[in-house]
Amino acid sequence: MDIYSRLTEEIIEELESVLDSGGVITKNIDVLENYSWDQAGRIWGHMPEAVVLPKNTEQVSSVMKIASRYRIPVTPRGAGSGLNGGAVPLAGGIVISLERMNSIIEIDPVNRVAVVEPGVVTNDLCRAAAEKGFMYAGYPMSTETSFIGGNFATNAGGGKVVRYGSTRRHILGAEAVLPSGEVISLGGRFRKDTWGYNILQLLIGSEGTLAVITKLIVNLEPKPGKTVNLLACYPDIDTLVESVSKVISSGKKIISCEFMDRNLVRYTTEYLGCRLPEQEKSEGYLIIQIEADNEGELEESYEVVGKICMSCGAFEVFVAESRTDSAAMWNVRQNGLEGMRAKDPWACSSGDLMVPLSAVPEMLRRINSAGREWGLEMGIISHIGDGNIHPIPIKPEGMSPEKWAVYSEEFFEALIKEAISLGGVGSGEHGVGHVKQHIIIQSKSPAELELLRNIKRSFDPLNILNPGKMFLPLGN
Amino acid sequence: MDIYSRLTEEIIEELESVLDSGGVITKNIDVLENYSWDQAGRIWGHMPEAVVLPKNTEQVSSVMKIASRYRIPVTPRGAGSGLNGGAVPLAGGIVISLERMNSIIEIDPVNRVAVVEPGVVTNDLCRAAAEKGFMYAGYPMSTETSFIGGNFATNAGGGKVVRYGSTRRHILGAEAVLPSGEVISLGGRFRKDTWGYNILQLLIGSEGTLAVITKLIVNLEPKPGKTVNLLACYPDIDTLVESVSKVISSGKKIISCEFMDRNLVRYTTEYLGCRLPEQEKSEGYLIIQIEADNEGELEESYEVVGKICMSCGAFEVFVAESRTDSAAMWNVRQNGLEGMRAKDPWACSSGDLMVPLSAVPEMLRRINSAGREWGLEMGIISHIGDGNIHPIPIKPEGMSPEKWAVYSEEFFEALIKEAISLGGVGSGEHGVGHVKQHIIIQSKSPAELELLRNIKRSFDPLNILNPGKMFLPLGN
Repeated sequence: MDIYSRLTEEIIEELESVLDSGGVITKNIDVLENYSWDQAGRIWGHMPEAVVLPKNTEQVSSVMKIASRYRIPVTPRGAGSGLNGGAVPLAGGIVISLERMNSIIEIDPVNRVAVVEPGVVTNDLCRAAAEKGFMYAGYPMSTETSFIGGNFATNAGGGKVVRYGSTRRHILGAEAVLPSGEVISLGGRFRKDTWGYNILQLLIGSEGTLAVITKLIVNLEPKPGKTVNLLACYPDIDTLVESVSKVISSGKKIISCEFMDRNLVRYTTEYLGCRLPEQEKSEGYLIIQIEADNEGELEESYEVVGKICMSCGAFEVFVAESRTDSAAMWNVRQNGLEGMRAKDPWACSSGDLMVPLSAVPEMLRRINSAGREWGLEMGIISHIGDGNIHPIPIKPEGMSPEKWAVYSEEFFEALIKEAISLGGVGSGEHGVGHVKQHIIIQSKSPAELELLRNIKRSFDPLNILNPGKMFLPLGN
Repeated sequence: MDIYSRLTEEIIEELESVLDSGGVITKNIDVLENYSWDQAGRIWGHMPEAVVLPKNTEQVSSVMKIASRYRIPVTPRGAGSGLNGGAVPLAGGIVISLERMNSIIEIDPVNRVAVVEPGVVTNDLCRAAAEKGFMYAGYPMSTETSFIGGNFATNAGGGKVVRYGSTRRHILGAEAVLPSGEVISLGGRFRKDTWGYNILQLLIGSEGTLAVITKLIVNLEPKPGKTVNLLACYPDIDTLVESVSKVISSGKKIISCEFMDRNLVRYTTEYLGCRLPEQEKSEGYLIIQIEADNEGELEESYEVVGKICMSCGAFEVFVAESRTDSAAMWNVRQNGLEGMRAKDPWACSSGDLMVPLSAVPEMLRRINSAGREWGLEMGIISHIGDGNIHPIPIKPEGMSPEKWAVYSEEFFEALIKEAISLGGVGSGEHGVGHVKQHIIIQSKSPAELELLRNIKRSFDPLNILNPGKMFLPLGN
């Protein structure tokens, strides 16, 4: 960590000279503390020396030029809703928060794109798109808090990936500030190109370690037609997973295919004071959202999907007859983490596992078996249509929160190793940050790790941008 | 070019020792000549010293290790159907042809993927997928010749991008041999991940300059339902383009939206001995292919789309009543280049232009105006739903073929500059190769060019893999 300069009065004055009034925070420890951690928890945090709040690309560029000149670490930050410490300024230095760059610059209906700044809250973009008759489809579950820039940084997934793909598919262009302060423009208002290496795609999911994004051009989809929600109840997990694969291959417009296990449903319905149908008998539930252009198509679609579920072994499939019915099922899904936390405030969703769909039954078995081995009770939710699983273990009684912070991560590490052994990876949508760093390093071959380091060096020879993250430990 | 070693007898023996019998060609000049050029034309070709025909990943790796040790240029080659010299061994050395690695290893219905070797002909994959009830959707127009590895190398587009996206969207995993000979495995049988930089996405469209792909995991889509083809005839281009934008935003399942201009239709119908409706009056045609699950939806869809076209100013929209009708319209579209070549054997399709959809009318005007200025007659076909335009000029009478090879490229260069000035890029699907190299270099900022060079160096410090291509001239 000696390679970096500390912020001097002189450097702070330089920063102040390039930012607007109030754009540099260095003295207010309470404010700095707010920028020292993300949803991984305070235990994974680290204090910055300064927080800067740029209002435009030029200011971001100026900050990076100063940081380059003095070799000061800079950590870009969106809403801080990440789960793996990606936005934590691990080496101190400057946090560059994009919260003031929150304009929806344009909704362009002819090219079906929106041009936005990185600090736009995902749902604000969704609403603005909806007003013009479009949909922004690349959004995570945390739509009301996460920034579009953070979605970009983690290649965020969410509940609609089955139909629309992850964030990667919806990013068409970007303006990016390199660690040197140089500004480059990537992609544009079009959907394909082959005109040099696709740097844009490389930046998506790079967790702010290669460039600071200051503008995005995102794809808009036509507004979906009518939708219906089904709730299918299963006596066992294997038949449930068999349905998933068949439902997705049915050719119907499946928007979401979400899984909840018995335990998660139990605690969450207790928390919400509600019940799902067949709750005594069901080992697991699927919520399936289907889209169609009209009532006739919708009815045909849910009949086909319902029959698939039944023929695979579901003992009941409920069609939500009303908005209230739909809201009731989704309410359980969306409050899964809160439900587990009502049972135990230390319940943690410390990441996500990604496996091929064919490996989901075995992965679920291994998660449950590992839970028993580690003495952990848990609930499981899953974007199961993607093979993306979120186990939520709760702290064993009597274990200290400090020990739990480490124990739960060790448990998660064991699960990631299982996922990798089944042909998966350690994260489908939450990324690596520094919390999962030791795991990613173990999971990649020396040749790939060298390549990753070389790529990082191509962009950031001084290693000032978000140092200590992903595959590159601090001090390397 | 002095930086590279020439192939000695000793090196050839080493190559022979790692390949199967007949896997190294060095003496037969006629055969070598076949591997010296691609569809850019012989004028852009260059002779290799050897052609090697590996049968598996280990052999590719061994070849790369030998090439690394002696610093010998290696140019990977698929079907040689590229238009910009991407497969030309510009610095001599070794052509590594993937033609013997042509197995469809597996169709995996549960994970909806196919695992294939790079030498598989695109349509062989399409047929194998169809037999299992799936569709491979990321395919170019040259399905009967191009290899899936070449599609990967150029991020191939084609006629279905509007609905399914380009090749990039359909590549889920790959095995790649680095210039050092190291083998890395990327992605997998899943559709999202955020587990380190996405090297896979970086390799797609890198035209064989970063790694040699030896295995691919590709996405399969559910087999489409019923389809119908519409032919819409327009009195002018502006109203035609207005339709395109509205048709695509209609929410109907538009698979293709293809444009043909008056001239192209004239020469192609003369060549084929057929007529399209309203040929005297039409300045341009759209062929629109729509998909639906059943007859009712199909009928509703084509009525909606037809009305959009009419309300935008089409004077007629024909619905293909039969397979024969459909085949007749597509026959004109697919024979566009042949039609122009029947008029003049030197008609050339030397690349493609990519602009935002909103800029298509202006781009078409500029193409036509440039044609007049350069004294060139041409036909135009376009994947217009993507903003992707292929002008096909014919050689002016009296101009020598040698002069024409240069003149037509200069003309194309002028068009690319117009496309870039309208917010586009120089290629949507054919890539850069070495033919378009001077243009890409002009079109990128110094900061981006430096980044591209750094990335290339990250993978290939000796610059042995397909040297002289894309943004990096030979000798750099």
